[in-house]
Amino acid sequence: MTFSGVIPPLLTARTAEGDIDTDSISRLVEHLISGGVSGIFALGSSSEVPYMTNAERELVLRTCVEAIDGRVPLIIGTNEQTTARVIDEAQRLLAIGGDAIVVTSQYYAIDDLHEEERHFRAIAAAVDVPVFAYDVPVRTKQKLPVGLLAKLAREGVITGVKDSSNDDISFRLLALETADLEDFSLFTGHEVVCDGAMLSGAAGMVPGLGNVDPAGYVRLYEAARAGDWAQAKAEQDRLAQLFTIVNVTTPSVSGGAAGLGAFKTALELMGVISSRRMSTPMESLNDTEAERIRGILGEAGLL
Amino acid sequence: MTFSGVIPPLLTARTAEGDIDTDSISRLVEHLISGGVSGIFALGSSSEVPYMTNAERELVLRTCVEAIDGRVPLIIGTNEQTTARVIDEAQRLLAIGGDAIVVTSQYYAIDDLHEEERHFRAIAAAVDVPVFAYDVPVRTKQKLPVGLLAKLAREGVITGVKDSSNDDISFRLLALETADLEDFSLFTGHEVVCDGAMLSGAAGMVPGLGNVDPAGYVRLYEAARAGDWAQAKAEQDRLAQLFTIVNVTTPSVSGGAAGLGAFKTALELMGVISSRRMSTPMESLNDTEAERIRGILGEAGLL
Amino acid sequence: MTFSGVIPPLLTARTAEGDIDTDSISRLVEHLISGGVSGIFALGSSSEVPYMTNAERELVLRTCVEAIDGRVPLIIGTNEQTTARVIDEAQRLLAIGGDAIVVTSQYYAIDDLHEEERHFRAIAAAVDVPVFAYDVPVRTKQKLPVGLLAKLAREGVITGVKDSSNDDISFRLLALETADLEDFSLFTGHEVVCDGAMLSGAAGMVPGLGNVDPAGYVRLYEAARAGDWAQAKAEQDRLAQLFTIVNVTTPSVSGGAAGLGAFKTALELMGVISSRRMSTPMESLNDTEAERIRGILGEAGLL
Amino acid sequence: MTFSGVIPPLLTARTAEGDIDTDSISRLVEHLISGGVSGIFALGSSSEVPYMTNAERELVLRTCVEAIDGRVPLIIGTNEQTTARVIDEAQRLLAIGGDAIVVTSQYYAIDDLHEEERHFRAIAAAVDVPVFAYDVPVRTKQKLPVGLLAKLAREGVITGVKDSSNDDISFRLLALETADLEDFSLFTGHEVVCDGAMLSGAAGMVPGLGNVDPAGYVRLYEAARAGDWAQAKAEQDRLAQLFTIVNVTTPSVSGGAAGLGAFKTALELMGVISSRRMSTPMESLNDTEAERIRGILGEAGLL
Repeated sequence: MTFSGVIPPLLTARTAEGDIDTDSISRLVEHLISGGVSGIFALGSSSEVPYMTNAERELVLRTCVEAIDGRVPLIIGTNEQTTARVIDEAQRLLAIGGDAIVVTSQYYAIDDLHEEERHFRAIAAAVDVPVFAYDVPVRTKQKLPVGLLAKLAREGVITGVKDSSNDDISFRLLALETADLEDFSLFTGHEVVCDGAMLSGAAGMVPGLGNVDPAGYVRLYEAARAGDWAQAKAEQDRLAQLFTIVNVTTPSVSGGAAGLGAFKTALELMGVISSRRMSTPMESLNDTEAERIRGILGEAGLL
Repeated sequence: MTFSGVIPPLLTARTAEGDIDTDSISRLVEHLISGGVSGIFALGSSSEVPYMTNAERELVLRTCVEAIDGRVPLIIGTNEQTTARVIDEAQRLLAIGGDAIVVTSQYYAIDDLHEEERHFRAIAAAVDVPVFAYDVPVRTKQKLPVGLLAKLAREGVITGVKDSSNDDISFRLLALETADLEDFSLFTGHEVVCDGAMLSGAAGMVPGLGNVDPAGYVRLYEAARAGDWAQAKAEQDRLAQLFTIVNVTTPSVSGGAAGLGAFKTALELMGVISSRRMSTPMESLNDTEAERIRGILGEAGLL
Repeated sequence: MTFSGVIPPLLTARTAEGDIDTDSISRLVEHLISGGVSGIFALGSSSEVPYMTNAERELVLRTCVEAIDGRVPLIIGTNEQTTARVIDEAQRLLAIGGDAIVVTSQYYAIDDLHEEERHFRAIAAAVDVPVFAYDVPVRTKQKLPVGLLAKLAREGVITGVKDSSNDDISFRLLALETADLEDFSLFTGHEVVCDGAMLSGAAGMVPGLGNVDPAGYVRLYEAARAGDWAQAKAEQDRLAQLFTIVNVTTPSVSGGAAGLGAFKTALELMGVISSRRMSTPMESLNDTEAERIRGILGEAGLL
Repeated sequence: MTFSGVIPPLLTARTAEGDIDTDSISRLVEHLISGGVSGIFALGSSSEVPYMTNAERELVLRTCVEAIDGRVPLIIGTNEQTTARVIDEAQRLLAIGGDAIVVTSQYYAIDDLHEEERHFRAIAAAVDVPVFAYDVPVRTKQKLPVGLLAKLAREGVITGVKDSSNDDISFRLLALETADLEDFSLFTGHEVVCDGAMLSGAAGMVPGLGNVDPAGYVRLYEAARAGDWAQAKAEQDRLAQLFTIVNVTTPSVSGGAAGLGAFKTALELMGVISSRRMSTPMESLNDTEAERIRGILGEAGLL
């Protein structure tokens, strides 16, 4: 199995009371598959997985497996801080479902690259599915270097990288170093530079904003694949404009809550999910902020 | 219940094969209580708690509860990344034992101070024991500001702070702002500045090196309490010399493993625990490094 | 005057004894103009300007003015830490020559965005030439935010941005926000993502590696301008391969010295400059490292 | 010549119009010497030296030399970014006066410890006066490690360290490693932990707040020297309360301007200097903020 195309990180809908909203999650899965996505990434950072209890994680994954029903591959995040805990998390979740796992560097731990390398090797040895490395220094506070990722890729320890490092130099160099590896896939996790990432050699993209406009990202991807870069750029510029929904909040909303809160608010306004409610202790967007998002969605033709 | 004095963060012994070594842990507890400590802090960062599975955490805590047998208070770390997960962790662990919990800011999450405040309030509301805030930016990558800690202290949300921020300015200002609060206790988590911390107004100390020489820290504490600062300083200078055991490793050992690995190696050499084995993916110290530590322990009169 | 195309940051040659080598600098200017560059950026970070005395800066600039002789525009860096000092530096240097200045945020200062805004406004008011903002957080330790840059661009305070922030998200968003400004030019300062930057809307590039292969970057730029993205990408991939000359050093060479040292070594091997000597306290590359670079240059057809 | 005691970093008074106010500077020097200080540190960060042109730096130093008139030692900052530029700065300033220079690590440069070591060695070789290393990572963005400082101290390259790193662990370890060096002096640059610094082995202090209350810091120093730690602590606690004048500003004032602006406002209210005017682009405190400071000064008995 190789991976490519648009694989959005599925948001997790909650009810207005704060419980996991399985009906809304199922509708969101339909929205994505109807949009033409190549796969779904569940329990990634965009899903608010850091804020979910283990019971909630299991419920979300079960919901997701049922809703997808084998129509596209399902990649799952195993969001834990160190090697043994990631393995525990992976085994518990893979018993429910999932075709590959996505693993970050250790965090909270004070480690080094030797330990990072052993971390990925131990996890890959412990599971039966492909492992993606997830490079997200804004959260883990350390960048996975090109040299380590290329080495793990070449030896088959990892099957791909989801890059959310906002370091396009490293992205390009990793793409070049792995260009001859047929079974390796490099994905960007950033919403507004997907055309450039494809030009650099990406296999696809994992855009949070892809929950809101999956079809737009699929058009972007298809244009890039066809070498129609002018069209890819035009689509990307349109989506970058849509991305400004993340800027509508007052300063009392954290950076984490502003972005995901905007995506959820958009999906509530579009009727895909029932509530924009965020996980504790994040605040949900207020009505004024929601109205600003409605305006942007309208201009984008998404209402 | 108020907290004061020397409360070491209990190391977690493993067997040479890597399993939790309950016998060694029990011996270490005796070593600490014999040394005169006022309490024990289990499942702190020094315990390698980030690297333990949930089953291991429970086993360590159970061992600890039995070994202490009520002789001194037991404070426990609830090492999880966000509010709901900390509450889950606290409830699961407190069912086994513990007189207070120690809670860090959120990590991996991208949050702000409003969310941090809600985080501590929600956790304090969910448990029946006192809550310590644990300020450890080297791990969480954010400093808990004096203003927030003082506010939570004054309202009784937190009963104390374990400060491992290496920010003695904030430490002093927090001590001043909470000086009138009878039920609030400020602890330093740093090994080599305990005399200064006491001078600043600390209630006590949580030194990792206190696993190796608990009696030394108790003498330091008693001297400071008695106002004999020359004696406190002399004891601190001696312990700072002992602390150089953390510098014996080659660069291939990470900063995290070097410090805790040195403490465990010292305890192995002293016959308190059976093995200096570290948690995966950390490397244990090698024999050359252990010999260097033996030399320093000898000079300190600890062999 | 508007700015576009390839504008390399001119390296500063020194003699083997460490003095400014004006003959070599003149030859390098010829090498760049022969390669088809649209302009030259003198006294940028790549010139080792931080390490030059004021007398050396003036000598380099005078050499540069004479060697260019009006054939292409000359942009100059005014590398100082705060507003009044930048103005002094600009006035002293512009008396020698230069068609525009490049200004970073303040550094060493502990400031905020209000002060940054006043900084750029005061400098623009004090000089008669266009001002480029130079966004280089790896040196200044602060990112110039899109909002501030767009505001300064729209009001005509700055005429362009040289972006060395390795933040392609901000780059794209700034390109979108300034797309309607005819007199505003956005440049990337990164060597291996110029095709993506052009796709994002860049007016051009300021690549340090452009000292070594100016003609290659000019071909890249022309292909991108013509919408031939496949050709632009092929040229960029070739140049990214050439860029690996920055990785040949042993760890005892700092990151700063490794990159610029590699460029200077390449130019020495190509016969453009006489010595690869670096400014104090940086070490020059050794012969083993130079041989590795010779190999890469040979593969690239540059010897 | 050895250095010890209270050596405040002299603030730079400006007129309401923004020019250097030599009369006020002279009065401030008298205020400090009357307060019993052991020396004066001119052109340190607290002097706003980063914001001064070279002509202003020279004027301030000349004023200072004349006002001190040999009564106490004069230490001067040579605030430049790299080796050759620091040497230039030192030679130009020492021609005016000064008994020692204070040198930071390089900044803006992207360097490593090998280069830092060469940096200090080259500067010490180029001047005829003692060199202090100034460790101020909040500005330079890098910490000078204990090992490097101890090595330079032992070899006589540096005669002392001014520590503004807010890292009391490193401070204590450096004090221990240099305890046997008779000609080496360790100073803290932090206002609220001077008692702890003295307990750790400091030779003295360089407190910005010492401009406002020099006599208070002299009492603190004398009590510590006499081993009367209870008295030292009481004085320190009083001064820490006075230090809250740095917290009166609205968020629109930067961190840099808030602290120095508060000190200058206090001195204006005390009649020592004529204006609280800050250097461009920093804002001066407004009248509301000044009134808050008046209240704190009144409680401290300084009006």
